[in-house]
Amino acid sequence: MLLDQRLLPGEVGYLECRTAGEVAEAIRTLAVRGAPAIGIAAAYGLALVASRGEDLDDAYDVLLASRPTAVNLRWALDAMRDEPTRERAERIHADEVERCRAMGSHAVGLFPDGARVLTHCNAGGLATGGYGTALGAVRAAFEAGRVEHVWVDETRPLLQGARLTAWELEGLGIPHVVIPDGAAASFMARGEVDVIVTGADRIAANGDTANKIGTYSLAVLAAHHGLPLVVVAPTSTLDPHASSGADIPIEERDPAEVTARFPARNPAFDVTPGDLVAAIVTEHGVHRAPYAETLPREAATAR
Amino acid sequence: MLLDQRLLPGEVGYLECRTAGEVAEAIRTLAVRGAPAIGIAAAYGLALVASRGEDLDDAYDVLLASRPTAVNLRWALDAMRDEPTRERAERIHADEVERCRAMGSHAVGLFPDGARVLTHCNAGGLATGGYGTALGAVRAAFEAGRVEHVWVDETRPLLQGARLTAWELEGLGIPHVVIPDGAAASFMARGEVDVIVTGADRIAANGDTANKIGTYSLAVLAAHHGLPLVVVAPTSTLDPHASSGADIPIEERDPAEVTARFPARNPAFDVTPGDLVAAIVTEHGVHRAPYAETLPREAATAR
Repeated sequence: MLLDQRLLPGEVGYLECRTAGEVAEAIRTLAVRGAPAIGIAAAYGLALVASRGEDLDDAYDVLLASRPTAVNLRWALDAMRDEPTRERAERIHADEVERCRAMGSHAVGLFPDGARVLTHCNAGGLATGGYGTALGAVRAAFEAGRVEHVWVDETRPLLQGARLTAWELEGLGIPHVVIPDGAAASFMARGEVDVIVTGADRIAANGDTANKIGTYSLAVLAAHHGLPLVVVAPTSTLDPHASSGADIPIEERDPAEVTARFPARNPAFDVTPGDLVAAIVTEHGVHRAPYAETLPREAATAR
Repeated sequence: MLLDQRLLPGEVGYLECRTAGEVAEAIRTLAVRGAPAIGIAAAYGLALVASRGEDLDDAYDVLLASRPTAVNLRWALDAMRDEPTRERAERIHADEVERCRAMGSHAVGLFPDGARVLTHCNAGGLATGGYGTALGAVRAAFEAGRVEHVWVDETRPLLQGARLTAWELEGLGIPHVVIPDGAAASFMARGEVDVIVTGADRIAANGDTANKIGTYSLAVLAAHHGLPLVVVAPTSTLDPHASSGADIPIEERDPAEVTARFPARNPAFDVTPGDLVAAIVTEHGVHRAPYAETLPREAATAR
């Protein structure tokens, strides 16, 4: 049973998946999205297949093909292939939530007092099976009394910010203001943003970070305004096989998500060079540039 | 009779205005939008009032209050107060279109051969009573064989790019691709953008340029990628009374245009510092920094 994120914030509805194909379809159509949540959903999908004694290799391939950019998906599927049980899927799920809490406590020190935080897309509990990466950090910082309010990039084309992040922040009682993506620079220039926090879908060994389209734009703008961009992501997001962002495949989605009336392009992700990332927070602590010195070692610990 | 731009691209419908209040409402609700087009509509509005022998001062105030940022509005109203006739309004209209053609021919040299042009919002014929400022320049450059295609920022929250600019380009037979605003940086980083061209709603004496929210973001991104941002706007857009962008009022519109479900902010414009603007093209030619040396003199010629 998956919370169908496509219906939020208007409706809290659930989707029942009985096959690997149905789980893959839920991932592909964004009923479940967010790099860690995709991994968790795929893990439960493989557990389902295994419990019926069906072919694991086919299911593995179907699930892996559902979305190309997030590396957690492959990571979770590999872990499940070694031990295809419901218990393993539940442990992956519980571990991701536990990692989020650890990231939150590591990240608190990166928020100045009274921080006005800008975030993009949704890296909250919805995206991670609970608590959140970037939004978990915001939550921990808010509980520590450090957050004044959160600027929520609406995040076109699918409005994960305006639909999902705002909905989560409302539920958590954290003050928030939705803005069009194009307005972020203006609020930075007015001195009304202190720190930018995002999640990640895949991080290369040199710190190049693939995340929702629009993140790279924020990173350049943050650098121009002397503001830190902080990436919060679990070790399952680190890809030791990608030496730089050039090795990360960028999913191009249906142009009709942008406009069905005219020609359009719809890359779902962009890559932010590591040198525009002030810090990468994993469950083990805070990494700083040069990332190539510490991230590959940490990637090897992912389990 | 005003083409109701709110209905585009789905429907070509017209709005009949019989009072200054109705024209002001059409401007306020964006049935007519674009700095020059607002000035033209207001000019016809005053001519209507004068033809009935009604109070011009009241109508002037009602029309001037309709939108605060575009300075062409005040310029056109002042011109009409001196000579409140239908002929004067028609001359303002014809002059704006004539200026657009002149801007287009001055701007052609700023487009490299095979240019992939990025534009924001709509500064086409719809915004100017015909031909267009930024889009007029694109049109002239396309006719000169210099434009490969146009990246069209969709321009949230009201999608003037995806609705209006794409519709105009389709009509002109100019290849175009709509993208989410947050994707522009990514295409710049891939080396797929050569020049960024926008209109303006008000330009201060030092070249600081108020334009649709998101323009400042593009200007910072353009500078980061070593790309020129060119502003195309008639002298009626120059405000000699604004020494810098700090003197330009920024309209904040209804947050419900962004989202009606959560708290939101909706500034309609931002200000791009003159030092991020590679060139400002008016009907008289191409201006370069330092703008304070040439723009004020040119503003004095506006008529």
